[in-house]
Amino acid sequence: MTDASIDPADPSDRDEHWARRAAELALRGEGLVEPNPMVGCVVVREGRLVGEGWHERFGGPHAEVNALNAAGEGARGATLYVSLEPCCHTGKTPPCTDAILAAGVTRVVAAVADPFPQVAGGGIHRLRAAGVVCELGPGAEPARRVLAPYLKRLATGRPWVIAKWAMTLDGKIATASGDSKWISGEASRAIVQRLRGRMDAIVVGRRTAQLDNPLLIARPPGPRVAARVVVGPIAPDCRLMETIADAPVIVVARSAEEEAACAKLGSLGADVVCLDNDDRVPVVTRLVELLGARGMTNVLVEGGGVLLGSMFDARLVDEAHVFVATKLIGGAGAPSPMGGAGQGTIAAGARLVDAVIEQVEGDVYIRGRLGDGEASSAGA
Amino acid sequence: MTDASIDPADPSDRDEHWARRAAELALRGEGLVEPNPMVGCVVVREGRLVGEGWHERFGGPHAEVNALNAAGEGARGATLYVSLEPCCHTGKTPPCTDAILAAGVTRVVAAVADPFPQVAGGGIHRLRAAGVVCELGPGAEPARRVLAPYLKRLATGRPWVIAKWAMTLDGKIATASGDSKWISGEASRAIVQRLRGRMDAIVVGRRTAQLDNPLLIARPPGPRVAARVVVGPIAPDCRLMETIADAPVIVVARSAEEEAACAKLGSLGADVVCLDNDDRVPVVTRLVELLGARGMTNVLVEGGGVLLGSMFDARLVDEAHVFVATKLIGGAGAPSPMGGAGQGTIAAGARLVDAVIEQVEGDVYIRGRLGDGEASSAGA
Ligand SMILES: NC(=O)c1ccc[n+]([C@@H]2O[C@H](COP(=O)([O-])OP(=O)(O)OC[C@H]3O[C@@H](n4cnc5c(N)ncnc54)[C@H](OP(=O)(O)O)[C@@H]3O)[C@@H](O)[C@H]2O)c1
Ligand SMILES: NC(=O)c1ccc[n+]([C@@H]2O[C@H](COP(=O)([O-])OP(=O)(O)OC[C@H]3O[C@@H](n4cnc5c(N)ncnc54)[C@H](OP(=O)(O)O)[C@@H]3O)[C@@H](O)[C@H]2O)c1
Repeated sequence: MTDASIDPADPSDRDEHWARRAAELALRGEGLVEPNPMVGCVVVREGRLVGEGWHERFGGPHAEVNALNAAGEGARGATLYVSLEPCCHTGKTPPCTDAILAAGVTRVVAAVADPFPQVAGGGIHRLRAAGVVCELGPGAEPARRVLAPYLKRLATGRPWVIAKWAMTLDGKIATASGDSKWISGEASRAIVQRLRGRMDAIVVGRRTAQLDNPLLIARPPGPRVAARVVVGPIAPDCRLMETIADAPVIVVARSAEEEAACAKLGSLGADVVCLDNDDRVPVVTRLVELLGARGMTNVLVEGGGVLLGSMFDARLVDEAHVFVATKLIGGAGAPSPMGGAGQGTIAAGARLVDAVIEQVEGDVYIRGRLGDGEASSAGA
Repeated sequence: MTDASIDPADPSDRDEHWARRAAELALRGEGLVEPNPMVGCVVVREGRLVGEGWHERFGGPHAEVNALNAAGEGARGATLYVSLEPCCHTGKTPPCTDAILAAGVTRVVAAVADPFPQVAGGGIHRLRAAGVVCELGPGAEPARRVLAPYLKRLATGRPWVIAKWAMTLDGKIATASGDSKWISGEASRAIVQRLRGRMDAIVVGRRTAQLDNPLLIARPPGPRVAARVVVGPIAPDCRLMETIADAPVIVVARSAEEEAACAKLGSLGADVVCLDNDDRVPVVTRLVELLGARGMTNVLVEGGGVLLGSMFDARLVDEAHVFVATKLIGGAGAPSPMGGAGQGTIAAGARLVDAVIEQVEGDVYIRGRLGDGEASSAGA
């Protein structure tokens, strides 16, 4: 069902309408609330909106409390729509279930149950026990989309991995000699800066660090500062190391010898981690697990092709953001966005789900989550 | 100046408005009139359209005659807008200048002078000599766009070369093992069929012929049937050879030995041409010249990457039509749309001019003419 098909005047669509609004509001916390979930909430009485709110920053009040504060006395006898089951435990703030009961809300519609161990259905249970009518499900689809990184981390311990690259119209991320400045235009690069500004980590391969000597710090700054991660050793005088006071640097050594060779980087403040090669688990998988274990929710992988190919082969990529420039450079030796082993057939490839395609000045910006290709959906 | 900015009620915009309409009409002859130029014409009296026409098919009446016939007596004292200078010689049809004078037109606005040796300004000259007010230039920009293949052939003897490919979102035209069915969706493939149906030749590399075993015949048929050209030898039992009765096959042998080895193909009806390697002129340049010498106006190059890369390196590509699928396959060994030597820097690459970007089902269709990159425009 698309938004356009939802009519708030139609009683059967009403829950879906307000539940979607709650999911929309949730997104306003993007980059500000992680590792907490982004949550939005609206309070509706007699078909009219009386208050809305969202979880605005980590440690701050939850969406429900903000919406109830906005509603004030209007919440009495109202329905509260929330994109994630209300909490029933005391964390950084008191339980939302208490606030809901205190406000006199008589019905709660939650899009998605919270898998967080201290909630896990307990929020709904507590509200029902207090006589509040509860429903779970309306607006689940948009809410799940917004909550995907949070839900993935709780389910797997791994962060949400976004692959990003800019390529020419002939599918190259640099010339054969390594020039990549600039494939995409200024407006596209500004979008990348905004993406960086809400990440917990930004990962690049050793060769990209060497050839591009990037900063990987969002300019202007975003809501959070990402750790900059390089797979393989870097030079002690590179820009990443020079700016280590501004954002952490994590260097992945792939053997004990490499780790020893990185001692200088460690003494300069880099966090050198050794993820040694093991035939069964690829280095990139171990890296993603390490970042998850450190409480990270969103990780951006900026290439190059060797790194992105190994991430794709290991099925670690959840979402792709691609800028296609209307430029051609040619060259059999020019690197492609994704190396690795790759898929044997087109049908076995991955497909973008809910792809969004936008023209950004001279570039085309294509983004979406990765889903299975034809082969698997035909088999399903 | 964009169309939207042109106000037909404003006297200073009036010529531009009608001249653009003439260029628009010209396009209706696409695929039907070549090697003649596509031309459109409108007859306007006292600010009102009294007749329009275009060159509809090779050997048929010219645009001016069709428009004047539509206008009838309305043409007396009218202005005639035509996207290319009227002819003044007898070709397959009598001179258009005679028809214009006979109809009593008092003013002629032509967008572009016809470089055709038997016209070359003579049309305008003859009309002026007979007392008709003539202007050259309004609507020149859209007319030149429509006439580009014709003007190129007259100026250089070479046809207009369109490169076409379908690639994954990670810039690949096949998997490492050679699977390419299907990268783009049905709607995109239907667009390719329409493109094929107006071409004089469709060129592929030997490896594409071998791996894909394509037909390269427009289905449904278009206004013309393209010769199918392969750079390098093909198998006598491939589908191209099996369908030789439906469309010609040209095989490019690159040495006398290869030519001898292609005798069997020749006896089956293929046209085997030998374009032997010469250090100065690449085979693909010689091929394009050969096709021009045979009177061809439009040539589609469908890949693979080796062929397209050599065409791009030799600066033979005039226009690109690219279908970007929202699929990912990965693979360092998967071919890229353009091989060859390529450019050393991004700035030295080519840039699409007047790029058109469209969403076609799950794919993004990007097309445009090739212009110089930043390096050259900065230097210009
Ligand atoms: N346009 C864009 O969006 C974009 C983005 C990034 C980079 N680039 C361009 O891409 C080029 C560099 O790309 P690239 O593909 O050559 O290099 P890369 O992926 O940046 O780095 C490759 C190197 O990193 C290490 N590495 C990566 N993945 C690994 C894994 N899974 N396990 C172990 N080690 C791993 C390896 O180092 P060892 O060799 O030491 O084993 C590998 O050779 C540059 O020209 C850069 O400008 C473009
Ligand atoms: N997705 C798409 O739009 C699309 C379109 C076409 C092809 N494809 C895929 O691309 C793959 C094939 O591409 P490819 O790049 O490997 O091969 P290709 O360009 O089709 O053919 C390459 C071969 O053709 C000959 N050739 C090409 N250009 C030449 C030149 N300038 N001078 C002399 N000989 C030349 C050479 O033959 P010799 O080796 O005999 O010298 C060369 O090895 C296939 O997997 C196919 O499915 C995809």
